[in-house]
Amino acid sequence: MAPAKRKKTSEKLKVVLDTSLFVNPDVRTSLGTTPTEALETFLFLAAQIHILEFYMPPSIFEELLHFVERDKIPADLLLILHQKPPKKHELKTPAFLLYELIEDIRERVNKGLRIAEKAVRSTEGKKADEIIQDMRRKYRDALREGIIDSKEDVDLLLLAMELDALLITADQGLIKWAEKLGVRWLFPEKFKEYLMSAIKRTELLSAKN
Amino acid sequence: MAPAKRKKTSEKLKVVLDTSLFVNPDVRTSLGTTPTEALETFLFLAAQIHILEFYMPPSIFEELLHFVERDKIPADLLLILHQKPPKKHELKTPAFLLYELIEDIRERVNKGLRIAEKAVRSTEGKKADEIIQDMRRKYRDALREGIIDSKEDVDLLLLAMELDALLITADQGLIKWAEKLGVRWLFPEKFKEYLMSAIKRTELLSAKN
Repeated sequence: MAPAKRKKTSEKLKVVLDTSLFVNPDVRTSLGTTPTEALETFLFLAAQIHILEFYMPPSIFEELLHFVERDKIPADLLLILHQKPPKKHELKTPAFLLYELIEDIRERVNKGLRIAEKAVRSTEGKKADEIIQDMRRKYRDALREGIIDSKEDVDLLLLAMELDALLITADQGLIKWAEKLGVRWLFPEKFKEYLMSAIKRTELLSAKN
Repeated sequence: MAPAKRKKTSEKLKVVLDTSLFVNPDVRTSLGTTPTEALETFLFLAAQIHILEFYMPPSIFEELLHFVERDKIPADLLLILHQKPPKKHELKTPAFLLYELIEDIRERVNKGLRIAEKAVRSTEGKKADEIIQDMRRKYRDALREGIIDSKEDVDLLLLAMELDALLITADQGLIKWAEKLGVRWLFPEKFKEYLMSAIKRTELLSAKN
């Protein structure tokens, strides 16, 4: 395989980060035990990397701030993690995506209906409130699973497309769509390893100059 | 306003037709009392028009054949109404559509859940089957309304985009999306009038030559 084409060799590779890297406990562990710690570790490592540029859509950045203790996060964050929304009125996506989205929605809507039907059938001798609570959970799970279901998800995907960036996320739905759109992505559990390698490469390159 | 640009003045304007023109009773009336009659009238008129080219995606054509008495339809149909699927793997759509679709889905999913909750609460002293039947109808209506909810809808939109054609449909959801995509569309109740004008124009042009 030929290496990915980039406009200039001096141009830094862009990396788009999702909140899930800092928030999802399965993925975060290598960086820290809390979202705050994970973000601090990332900033500490990223400050030593000169060959990559890190990006996050503002919508995702806002999400991230909900999960961390803001007063503990160094102001470096604003410099190291560039916040940029995608150019959503200029970008274009392949039309076949519409078919896939619609197929996906159809299946989910039918699933939701089956869940609702089961709930109605199970009401005998039970309290409506309990059934509804259970149904809500199942319904939301069924209709969320696998789909890109939020504007934040679309922001991430489109920003990665626009910047020809590497997308790093622990969200399987997003990875599925990155595959469809030809957006590069990294196994999220390799995130720290990736950062460590980038530090080494940075040191190597500065030693040469 | 400047007139719509076309590549050659000799090139015929393309028109993409939806089944709803022949099937929807509110729109069909000027053409015939049954879908078969409406389609026959259309073919009779269209045969006299040399300045337009009529198109239909095969998926929509198949739909149409379900509604008409096939043995009554003249074979002209195949010549006059071109069947062409859109180039779905070449066409691109603006990225902001993804945001709108996702917002739309979110609203609908929440509506569906509220309908299901009401159904569960209403079960006291009633038969589950009755409630479910009622719920199904409401649920489907809520989750369908306004959205482009089928592959056939997408076929119509994309084909009109690809051909830079005039889309004629009675489906309000499709008209909404035509507006978003800059696809020209005609008020469906003007369909017959439009055909009549095209016949007059055709006669005028042949008299000149």
